[in-house]
Amino acid sequence: MPHINLPPGHSPGISGLLMYRPETAHPLRELVEILLLGPSTLTPGEREIIASSVSWWNNCHFCHTSHGAAACVHLGRGSEFIDQIKACLPDEPLSPKMRALLHVAHQVQRGGKHVTEEDIAQAKQTGATDLEIYDTVLIAAAFCMFNRYVDGLGTWAWPEKERFMEIGEKMAHEGYMRPYIPEKP
Amino acid sequence: MPHINLPPGHSPGISGLLMYRPETAHPLRELVEILLLGPSTLTPGEREIIASSVSWWNNCHFCHTSHGAAACVHLGRGSEFIDQIKACLPDEPLSPKMRALLHVAHQVQRGGKHVTEEDIAQAKQTGATDLEIYDTVLIAAAFCMFNRYVDGLGTWAWPEKERFMEIGEKMAHEGYMRPYIPEKP
Repeated sequence: MPHINLPPGHSPGISGLLMYRPETAHPLRELVEILLLGPSTLTPGEREIIASSVSWWNNCHFCHTSHGAAACVHLGRGSEFIDQIKACLPDEPLSPKMRALLHVAHQVQRGGKHVTEEDIAQAKQTGATDLEIYDTVLIAAAFCMFNRYVDGLGTWAWPEKERFMEIGEKMAHEGYMRPYIPEKP
Repeated sequence: MPHINLPPGHSPGISGLLMYRPETAHPLRELVEILLLGPSTLTPGEREIIASSVSWWNNCHFCHTSHGAAACVHLGRGSEFIDQIKACLPDEPLSPKMRALLHVAHQVQRGGKHVTEEDIAQAKQTGATDLEIYDTVLIAAAFCMFNRYVDGLGTWAWPEKERFMEIGEKMAHEGYMRPYIPEKP
């Protein structure tokens, strides 16, 4: 049950919170739209994998599963891919750059000072640019916010990952600027 | 030394990062402007104490000291007040509501799921409204992002807290929407 009084039938996870307070919703939506879907040399699928991974490390089911579902849609994969993100995708042909950036994201999740010069040097050796490193750090940091916002206010979410494919479709195809209301509440 | 190539003479902490990538700077500035200086039944001083405290718990010297300095300006205190924030202000006449909200913020800093129904019930018993709880959770969550952004990219900061009073003045009086360039770099 949410820790604050959200209206009956409110949307799950962050969606209900964003509708509760539109003033703060606008910059939060704009931030995630730029970071995950704006122009970048990282694909939207790669950026959704970073978002979903950080959310898994933060134990945030709603954000892990919804951004995992968005990654599935971008990459043309089924919902079983969401579970593979939990294990850092050991059998996927991720590029060395993407593996190094995921490591940087994990260090950010642990705390900003965990990112070492060696972590950054390793990412640069695989070809990561300054802007890719910058965006990886900010995506990881932003999900340390979103995860705490969603769980710190006690929001609800569906238990089953399959139920998230609808929101994943909307996130991947329509972006983050508009409210999400489930078709089948 | 920053982990990415920022221009010579760049501003300290988050300021240099915001100037590096204006697209993401806009929503980040807007979010903190609304949360810390927008209309609220929590005073700007109270909200800056929450921001500075979370940053201290996250071991982020730049954010802790700059938001501590902004709190000093709002409350008419000297820079020694910044050090008292580290100890949770034991000798200050904070209201029971503010103490309960600071506890909620500390739970959010530990992780979203650390916030319990008892923590929220305690805050409500002291008179905290749903909106005050919502904003406290989002301020704490947002500083878990800002702290990781600032430290995860290896930014620089002055060691001495006294040096932060200039930026604290600007934050308190001019807000967060404009770039900060130190008068004495």
